[in-house]
Amino acid sequence: MTQISRGLKDVVLTETRLSGVDGEAGELIIAGFPLEELAPNATFEETLFLLWHDRLPNADELKRLRAQMSAARTMPPSTLDLLRQAAALDLPPMDGLRMGLDTLSLVDGDPAAMDREANLRRARDLTARMPLLIAAYWRLLHGREPVKPRPDLGHAAHFLYLMTGKEPEGAAERGLETYLNAVVDHGMNASTFTARVIISTRSDMVSALVGAVGALKGPLHGGAPGPALESVFMLRQRSEEVGRPLEEVTEEWTRQMVEAGDRIMGFGHRVYRVRDPRADVLGKAARRLFERSADSGLYRDAQTVERKVLEVLAEAKPGRRLNTNVEFYTALLLHGVGLEPAIFSSIFGMGRVGGWTAHILEQLEENILVRPRSAYNGPRDRRWIAIEQRE
Amino acid sequence: MTQISRGLKDVVLTETRLSGVDGEAGELIIAGFPLEELAPNATFEETLFLLWHDRLPNADELKRLRAQMSAARTMPPSTLDLLRQAAALDLPPMDGLRMGLDTLSLVDGDPAAMDREANLRRARDLTARMPLLIAAYWRLLHGREPVKPRPDLGHAAHFLYLMTGKEPEGAAERGLETYLNAVVDHGMNASTFTARVIISTRSDMVSALVGAVGALKGPLHGGAPGPALESVFMLRQRSEEVGRPLEEVTEEWTRQMVEAGDRIMGFGHRVYRVRDPRADVLGKAARRLFERSADSGLYRDAQTVERKVLEVLAEAKPGRRLNTNVEFYTALLLHGVGLEPAIFSSIFGMGRVGGWTAHILEQLEENILVRPRSAYNGPRDRRWIAIEQRE
Repeated sequence: MTQISRGLKDVVLTETRLSGVDGEAGELIIAGFPLEELAPNATFEETLFLLWHDRLPNADELKRLRAQMSAARTMPPSTLDLLRQAAALDLPPMDGLRMGLDTLSLVDGDPAAMDREANLRRARDLTARMPLLIAAYWRLLHGREPVKPRPDLGHAAHFLYLMTGKEPEGAAERGLETYLNAVVDHGMNASTFTARVIISTRSDMVSALVGAVGALKGPLHGGAPGPALESVFMLRQRSEEVGRPLEEVTEEWTRQMVEAGDRIMGFGHRVYRVRDPRADVLGKAARRLFERSADSGLYRDAQTVERKVLEVLAEAKPGRRLNTNVEFYTALLLHGVGLEPAIFSSIFGMGRVGGWTAHILEQLEENILVRPRSAYNGPRDRRWIAIEQRE
Repeated sequence: MTQISRGLKDVVLTETRLSGVDGEAGELIIAGFPLEELAPNATFEETLFLLWHDRLPNADELKRLRAQMSAARTMPPSTLDLLRQAAALDLPPMDGLRMGLDTLSLVDGDPAAMDREANLRRARDLTARMPLLIAAYWRLLHGREPVKPRPDLGHAAHFLYLMTGKEPEGAAERGLETYLNAVVDHGMNASTFTARVIISTRSDMVSALVGAVGALKGPLHGGAPGPALESVFMLRQRSEEVGRPLEEVTEEWTRQMVEAGDRIMGFGHRVYRVRDPRADVLGKAARRLFERSADSGLYRDAQTVERKVLEVLAEAKPGRRLNTNVEFYTALLLHGVGLEPAIFSSIFGMGRVGGWTAHILEQLEENILVRPRSAYNGPRDRRWIAIEQRE
């Protein structure tokens, strides 16, 4: 009998120098750096350079990259028109991002150039334009006009500027930057895989990235960081309403969820059997951010909820090794940065595009068409019947 | 050592009832029908119904499907605006198709509805709209305004009407219909695979189809049917110029190509080790079409070229079992239908969308996230260095 690998779970597609995930050990390496070494220290532009060139940039190189990315902060008028139409129909942010990104073939320059230099330029330009699409669409969805880009801010700060029209505080910028670094790449996840399959036909970078955004849109991949935070807010409120400690209502709620067989958002991951290293990095970033914030109680409450949920899960499902995943602290951190849950998946894409573009470049270095097989399980001998004789 | 499956060549992703490819035997089954039984007999709408419902429609069902697809012959104004911009920049037809298709989320109806009924409706509507996008973009690329859709023609005939503004002859309609049927599905090819990976995250049908078009755009998948025909024209002309029989100049040219290590377009396939069954079906369709045409000599000359190339290849590369592939007769048939090589890949997509949509529906029946692994081969212990200290 043919062996079927429906989810390709145990299939190793390729070697890569871009990231390594060790789910048993809870380790994530980004281009040679343990995540906890890279994410809190690097600007997002440094992380991009690292993925694209396999080393950190020196001061001149970083300056040049920032200038090149600043210069790409433009959007074709047709793109804006389209986003306006989509927003009028209230299409989800990820649809706006995918449709908008797809139109960037309009500013591709030379579609025929397929050498590494041309693709590096595309990687820079398209990565630089993601924040424009996301922020413009978000504002249009909320009845506000897009903010005009400016050249003088870094990538993360500029995105927050495009969202609000105001220069962000340093803590928010650093929080977002740490988030973008933390999610920039993660082995052969479904969207990165999609990008590699598409480029493996020798298609083009926009086609591959649009496919990746489409894959990231799915809840089984892009996940649901929103609900993880909503649980914390709900439990806080319940604690206040019934006048009992947060620990107690969390414990009670978790037991009810477990008994009902419901999944608790923010916990458990297909790959990690110990704590997701990204959760650690994001948790620390959230702590730093909330330390200086008016709502520092939220961080403490989230920790309380996390601790109690883990206790109950460890007791109720000891074999499952359920741990805090990236969604839990993503939600807390991005909330602290001032962003709303409905835009979280788009921000995920704004970070992951660094990985997507780097994987596309890596796939092209030694390309082979990615094309599995299928096993036919239907009949083989149907014969044509004239339509009058069909039942 | 970890086993790497870079092209996933020997990996079987899934069982499917949609199509079965036996490359050793040269057999292609489409939902129970040997290709040669289905392709010359069915209208494209019947083939679509077959893939979506696993049986041929009766007269009432076919009538209803045609009415539903006719009713979907609309395109949002923003789509047309975007195609106009893309055409002004002379972007390739496949870029126009991908960008246009992506905007069809604007007319998705209810993006939240994810049941089978909603996805069947999407499959019908999006398949019905593909010809509008392709024909409108082609005309805009050539400085002509799109033709207004009409409800009374079948899918294939309507496409030809949209291209020319004239009702096509029956022979051209039948030729195109046979082509669309012949390429509608073909196991787990790269674009179908892309669509399944994207939908496996529980994303949406537009996202999955846009990814598929992006994959089909790549020359390693969508191929190059144009060049196969150009070789025939070139050899015909050379034969006339030097006043020697077509057989001779073909033999000479083929030997030169083989010696230079150049690939001869229209011959050889990754899967088929005998003659591609689609080549047979398309060859016969081309013969029928050219029998009634003024240029019936072209069909005979193509046969001559095919025979000579195969002779030389069999002698020069006996172990390779190189045979005529689908591109050779695709080019001849579509040329006979009155279409130009630059649009062939889009027409391929217009047929294959039947398979894409059916595979998306099949994947959703028993979905599992498609996500392979990768093996990290970079360093693991890089440490952060302040930018001033970098070389």
